[in-house]
Amino acid sequence: MLVQKYRDMLSEKSVIRQLSEFATARGQEIGYENVFDYSLGNPSVPVPRELTEAILHYASEDTQFVHGYSPSLGIPSVREAIAASLERRFGLPYRKEHIFMASGAAGALAHAFRLVTQPGDEILTFAPFFPEYHPYVDLTGAALKVVPPDTEQFQINMERLGEMLGPKVMAVLVNTPNNPSGVVYSAETLRELSELLRERSARYGHDIYLISDEPYREIVFDGVQAPCVSAFYDNTITCYSFSKSLSLPGERIGYLAVNPNCQDAEVMVNMCGQISRGIGHNCPPSLFQLAVGRLADLTADLSVYETNRNILYEELTKLGFSCVKPGGTFYIFPKALEEDAKEFCRKALKYDLILVPGDTFGAPGYFRMAYCIDTEKVERSLKALRRFVKEEYGKVG
Amino acid sequence: MLVQKYRDMLSEKSVIRQLSEFATARGQEIGYENVFDYSLGNPSVPVPRELTEAILHYASEDTQFVHGYSPSLGIPSVREAIAASLERRFGLPYRKEHIFMASGAAGALAHAFRLVTQPGDEILTFAPFFPEYHPYVDLTGAALKVVPPDTEQFQINMERLGEMLGPKVMAVLVNTPNNPSGVVYSAETLRELSELLRERSARYGHDIYLISDEPYREIVFDGVQAPCVSAFYDNTITCYSFSKSLSLPGERIGYLAVNPNCQDAEVMVNMCGQISRGIGHNCPPSLFQLAVGRLADLTADLSVYETNRNILYEELTKLGFSCVKPGGTFYIFPKALEEDAKEFCRKALKYDLILVPGDTFGAPGYFRMAYCIDTEKVERSLKALRRFVKEEYGKVG
Repeated sequence: MLVQKYRDMLSEKSVIRQLSEFATARGQEIGYENVFDYSLGNPSVPVPRELTEAILHYASEDTQFVHGYSPSLGIPSVREAIAASLERRFGLPYRKEHIFMASGAAGALAHAFRLVTQPGDEILTFAPFFPEYHPYVDLTGAALKVVPPDTEQFQINMERLGEMLGPKVMAVLVNTPNNPSGVVYSAETLRELSELLRERSARYGHDIYLISDEPYREIVFDGVQAPCVSAFYDNTITCYSFSKSLSLPGERIGYLAVNPNCQDAEVMVNMCGQISRGIGHNCPPSLFQLAVGRLADLTADLSVYETNRNILYEELTKLGFSCVKPGGTFYIFPKALEEDAKEFCRKALKYDLILVPGDTFGAPGYFRMAYCIDTEKVERSLKALRRFVKEEYGKVG
Repeated sequence: MLVQKYRDMLSEKSVIRQLSEFATARGQEIGYENVFDYSLGNPSVPVPRELTEAILHYASEDTQFVHGYSPSLGIPSVREAIAASLERRFGLPYRKEHIFMASGAAGALAHAFRLVTQPGDEILTFAPFFPEYHPYVDLTGAALKVVPPDTEQFQINMERLGEMLGPKVMAVLVNTPNNPSGVVYSAETLRELSELLRERSARYGHDIYLISDEPYREIVFDGVQAPCVSAFYDNTITCYSFSKSLSLPGERIGYLAVNPNCQDAEVMVNMCGQISRGIGHNCPPSLFQLAVGRLADLTADLSVYETNRNILYEELTKLGFSCVKPGGTFYIFPKALEEDAKEFCRKALKYDLILVPGDTFGAPGYFRMAYCIDTEKVERSLKALRRFVKEEYGKVG
């Protein structure tokens, strides 16, 4: 018999996907260039030339070596290169033994959750949050619980966290720079979080792990570096993807890194190799392992995202939106102009503006714009945005 | 706390891996060309030139498209090309809707098991079998039960199957051409199996699915095609990998195909997209999807495997080994010359012959040779083989 829980999931329609389908259909009517599609978090910049060169180089080489089986933890030279890059950039003594190559951040998270939770355990995360966390966690048998947002700054609502961090919580999942808010957690936030985790680990007599989902780590603005989550808390498992930094989300290449100061770091990486056997993982593609290993410090030209952030933030605040200024990512998460953000986003469709209601991210009343689109289109969208706000809400910037 | 079951698995040492490590170490002493390493099932032929060309072509193209997100079921044009190839070759009306792109056969199997079993259910397979099936199935919470071998022909022991096929069995897992025996299941075997499955499905009042793991489908000898498992039984889920046919096991590219005559075929493929969310799958690498989609009928030059089979089969039978002639794969599975195959393989190491005891595959008393190595080395190994047999067992061919 087919397993009912997966069959039931088919009837849940993803709001983001529905909006994206609407945008595509509308594009066929009026030309996609006239649809201001802010629905999807797809990188909009090309991969760096050096990456294409690396792919061409390896694909032309001894193909048995290049396309051969990778060891289940990843290709040793690649793990070494990544560890060296992390050490150089963040000052923690990462070694090959702390790195597990994974098929994107989703693959890394699938391993992290299984490392530290069993069915019945709880993982906490913070609204607003990436909605896929729910199936990612819930289908392991553990339960994802969502701490309500700090709507002031979209940092962490520490009071509610303190209440919800009970003895069943085995891990706390953070995502900074954050999808959908664009906010970067401050050093102060991370310090406070870490202290609480240490205190509760001691109180409950078991380790609580910090799982840090960092696909946007390299997309930060105003010349600042995002604080390194792992540097604040030894029991940190970092889940990284090259999808956004190198603009290759379809190639499923990332890694899991265990903080070298975590007592069981090496064992945990070895355990990941066992977890893989149960979920059909078997390492990310060899060719892309080799390519990113050669370019561990490289990113695509990500400057367009900051340009777009500046244009949108300025216009939105001018139009009277309440909005935390994003410190990174390619998202912005303003407050809607009416209480029901779904209704707000529905009205925006009339102006060919595709916005995603915050309900999807656990923060009703807000909406997300994914500005990983051409700057030229962002600029053209401003007119539609002004018209929308004026005609529907009587506001003029 | 770290999850103990994965930690415990670290102490189980894989026999194949230990032997392979021994071969590498011995190679450092005497030169790897002098170690007759029959331990690992790694393809030994280069990828076809057309595949390299396809990779170079796509990697040079519009990189945002090529490296972009794939839909969770796979790239539609690729699914279409694979369906058309299957229809052309096997005569079943496959369409895009029956194909789910997966990261190798391991990825496909991870979805298949979760489609049709829940914790507590049983999956049956047949000795000799690929030992990874145990963690693949057991870590889902279902239980893998192994039907003892038909040591006459390494087809299916139907009597024992009949006894073991109780109401808790939700799926039967076959692997033909078979690792480790090299045997191809006959049409008669598949007919008999299918009849039994239909009879028991009716008796127990629930569907029993046939999961067919077919990474060696294209490696068949003597000009015959392996019978198409799916053609015998509507409720068949085929798990395929391009690893062996195109010699790219590290790139993790394969698919799951549901028999078009299976009542729920399209729903099942859609359900796979939901299963992916729980195991961090998120589609195989886009570049390799595109490349295999363009070359769905192509294989590497696999003829070396048949050449090696011929040399080894002739020599082994000449030396008095009892051995079923492989119809495909790159494995042969003779009876050891003493009851304890582990002892037999241990002795072989003195002659730098790396053989794997059948205990690993659920068939004690036999041993596996993976002859995916150069023919020149196979030929040189015969002298060592003869010396081994003569000195240890007093046999002369």
